[in-house]
Amino acid sequence: MQTAKHDLMRNTNTLCVLTCLLNHGPVTKREIQEKTGLSWGAVSNITGELLNKGVIVDSKSPDSSAGRTPSLLDIHPSRNLILGLDINTEGITAVLTDLKCRTLKRIRQEVKESGQEQIIRQVKQMASELMKEPDINREQMMGIGIAMQGAVDVERGVSVFSPHFPEWKDVPVKSILEEEFHLPVYLEHDPNCMALSERWLGKAKRVDDLLFIRLSMGIGMSILIHGEVYRGADGCAGEFGHIIMNPGGPRCSCGNFGCLETYASGSHLLQHAIEAVKLGRSPGLAALAANAELNLELVAEAARRGDEHMKNLFEEAGIYLGIGIANLLNIFNPGMIVIGGELVRYQDLILEKAREMVCRQAWKGSRVNLVVSELGSDAAAVGAAAVFIEKILKGELLHLLL
Amino acid sequence: MQTAKHDLMRNTNTLCVLTCLLNHGPVTKREIQEKTGLSWGAVSNITGELLNKGVIVDSKSPDSSAGRTPSLLDIHPSRNLILGLDINTEGITAVLTDLKCRTLKRIRQEVKESGQEQIIRQVKQMASELMKEPDINREQMMGIGIAMQGAVDVERGVSVFSPHFPEWKDVPVKSILEEEFHLPVYLEHDPNCMALSERWLGKAKRVDDLLFIRLSMGIGMSILIHGEVYRGADGCAGEFGHIIMNPGGPRCSCGNFGCLETYASGSHLLQHAIEAVKLGRSPGLAALAANAELNLELVAEAARRGDEHMKNLFEEAGIYLGIGIANLLNIFNPGMIVIGGELVRYQDLILEKAREMVCRQAWKGSRVNLVVSELGSDAAAVGAAAVFIEKILKGELLHLLL
Repeated sequence: MQTAKHDLMRNTNTLCVLTCLLNHGPVTKREIQEKTGLSWGAVSNITGELLNKGVIVDSKSPDSSAGRTPSLLDIHPSRNLILGLDINTEGITAVLTDLKCRTLKRIRQEVKESGQEQIIRQVKQMASELMKEPDINREQMMGIGIAMQGAVDVERGVSVFSPHFPEWKDVPVKSILEEEFHLPVYLEHDPNCMALSERWLGKAKRVDDLLFIRLSMGIGMSILIHGEVYRGADGCAGEFGHIIMNPGGPRCSCGNFGCLETYASGSHLLQHAIEAVKLGRSPGLAALAANAELNLELVAEAARRGDEHMKNLFEEAGIYLGIGIANLLNIFNPGMIVIGGELVRYQDLILEKAREMVCRQAWKGSRVNLVVSELGSDAAAVGAAAVFIEKILKGELLHLLL
Repeated sequence: MQTAKHDLMRNTNTLCVLTCLLNHGPVTKREIQEKTGLSWGAVSNITGELLNKGVIVDSKSPDSSAGRTPSLLDIHPSRNLILGLDINTEGITAVLTDLKCRTLKRIRQEVKESGQEQIIRQVKQMASELMKEPDINREQMMGIGIAMQGAVDVERGVSVFSPHFPEWKDVPVKSILEEEFHLPVYLEHDPNCMALSERWLGKAKRVDDLLFIRLSMGIGMSILIHGEVYRGADGCAGEFGHIIMNPGGPRCSCGNFGCLETYASGSHLLQHAIEAVKLGRSPGLAALAANAELNLELVAEAARRGDEHMKNLFEEAGIYLGIGIANLLNIFNPGMIVIGGELVRYQDLILEKAREMVCRQAWKGSRVNLVVSELGSDAAAVGAAAVFIEKILKGELLHLLL
């Protein structure tokens, strides 16, 4: 039960000014006053304290005559930095961002060895490397946000399991890195990080009710409601890949039959393409894959070069994906649906059919706002930094700033 | 943007005490202190004011020796009353509740004439009747909550359309009744009222993430997230009846093919039964309906007496409903799903199969907490009163109490 604390009003107002600066900076104090509804005195006190602590800067143009130009305030671009990490089968990404979630530096590496200790060692090395840059002072670092695949226990900061990391089980990533770096660490499931990225820097700015679908070897989803990650009662909300499209359909890796993943996931496409080559049904693909390992890139190339069987395979994926998305629209009526993940590379082959189905099947009166992510491979790492910044804006870590 | 107001702390604390009394009353001041974390002084001040204004009562047992027994505080049982209305094709229900949403009085009538003016007149008469009871003082009335079928514009308090009320279009119910009774009025879509009823008085007490499915001639759904109605970007969230179960399925009233309503709604069951009788495929039902109009009650009776075709019809509805519910579980991972609506009368025929499908198809690790509503036909009207009470607990109408 929420009770008023003595410094509640003061903190609420400070967060209010900070949010205004994050969203609208650079701004004058007058603009802050207009946008927040706070008194001139309150705005002056709070911005004074934030300037004093180096959280914000006054970027008043230096050639203006002193005393005549009002202060132009903005978030300090090189203090209060956040490290965002994405620990992923496809590679490890580390970014350094400011409080506005702007990337200052980044590194990306392949996973060198997939053992648990080796991965942790590599992550520590990459994090140290980024924070040891000559122009970065350790005192500027606020904390670390981490995006993880698989099952994540967000409360405890434990990576419960991660597909394709064979030894990986119940790894207390938060406490390991907190001990190493003496900084607060937060863990989050990677589709949620990608969704937050879209809201901070991508196509979903100011969209409160947002679905982010990650199309890759599997199909994942993040649900943001009123801008916040919705997790469900046991933390398993968003299993969009396992909604049942056809109760008599093919068996899925989850044990059920006819899940969306059995029609529209990267795994399904690849497995089906391999079968087609073996059965001699896809001569175009067979020719392309004669001297190379068959992968989705080749399957797409075959489809683009006119291999009918492969074209149909992508189109069928699009049709089922479209029906699934129409169902999401009918249930959620979200402000926007963003599609991201590796399969976005093949959007020319999949999404036309998907869009056609969505428009045909969506409930009348409910908007169809379906867009494709344009954030690159740093999206999850940047989103992990955003997870950290949002903790500050909720007041949980305000003491780190003030 | 939220800014701190000067009386924020005071109001927050008052709402905190009020919520504690609604959830736990009768309680002692010591218990309030423990449950809210407020100081003894704050609890004393606030309960003093609430006693003074007649919002709460001290129900200290009269035979205890004065001064030794602590005050036992509870919501006043006959002041600050709310009128809850349900305006529905099947009838109009009016209930009078206290702040704890306990029903003090109720009336229910058939809709006498279905013209817009006639319905409004009947509603006004019923509301006046309930509020004119000899022991009710008009000053005790706080306001009115209304549950409406069809499409509701909650912001403006307008009933946009209501199925089966032929002339009914864009009726400003809120302003009509506010003008008549000089009381604040709130309108809400009826499945949302029924969901709130479950949370206040039914099986979903303290369940924050709740889905309420109304199975009747159509299939509706209410989504409560963190205890609040989730409406979506255009207010059309919850169209569970129109998720696509089978893209090649029968045509639905919405224009699409294979929606859940084409397999599991009351309309589908009735239409299918009529066809079966005409085609001579259901002799059991034909005998029962020889001298009566065919309705769902008869269809169910035929199934219960062993008419195989009708049994299969209900079972098939159950199978598709179960798959739909499994999909909801996979997407929302809700704390509970409550099934209500008319078709609950036939739960023996439908829900066994539904439950079987849900258990088979739900994502592992996600709870399956599927229950049937036991609230009777007053649920929507009582829930409409709850809509009003929740406005008070959010602070919007606190001035009416103090």
